[in-house]
Amino acid sequence: MKTKATFYHAGCPVCVAAEQNVAAALDTSRFDVEIVHLGTAKGRVAEAEAAGVKSVPALVIDGAPYHINFGADLSVLK
Amino acid sequence: MKTKATFYHAGCPVCVAAEQNVAAALDTSRFDVEIVHLGTAKGRVAEAEAAGVKSVPALVIDGAPYHINFGADLSVLK
Repeated sequence: MKTKATFYHAGCPVCVAAEQNVAAALDTSRFDVEIVHLGTAKGRVAEAEAAGVKSVPALVIDGAPYHINFGADLSVLK
Repeated sequence: MKTKATFYHAGCPVCVAAEQNVAAALDTSRFDVEIVHLGTAKGRVAEAEAAGVKSVPALVIDGAPYHINFGADLSVLK
C-alpha cells in the first residue's frame, strides 16, 4: 500500500517551485501524492492545520508536516 | 541522466526525521540522492552555503535550495 503524501500550497512562486522540484520528485511507486491548493480549497485549511502545517508550501508525509521554504503563513488562507 | 539531489543535515532530530521521510521519499530512478552530514563533513559547508542553504535540514535539487522545517542554522556548523 502506498504512503499518503499531501502537498499543500497557495499558488505562490515559492509554492510553485517547491511543487515542481520537491513534490514532483517523490517516488510515486511508493507514495500517493495529492496536491492541494488551499487558496481555492479553503475547506481543507483545517485539515492541514490539524496535521501541523503552519505555512505553505508544506508536505505532509504519513501524517507528519514538512515545511519547505516559506511562501505564506497558513493564517492568511483562512 | 539523473538529477542531482543533495540532502544536507547535522544529525539533529529534525534532520533525521526529514531524511527518513522526505529525502528517502525521492524517486531514486530519477534522482541521484546524496546525504551529507555537515557536522562531520565541515569541508562541504561552503558548498551548501553557495547553493543558498541557510539552515539544515535542506535539500538542494538541481542547484536550488529547499529548507525543510528547521533544525539548525548553517552558521553554527562553520
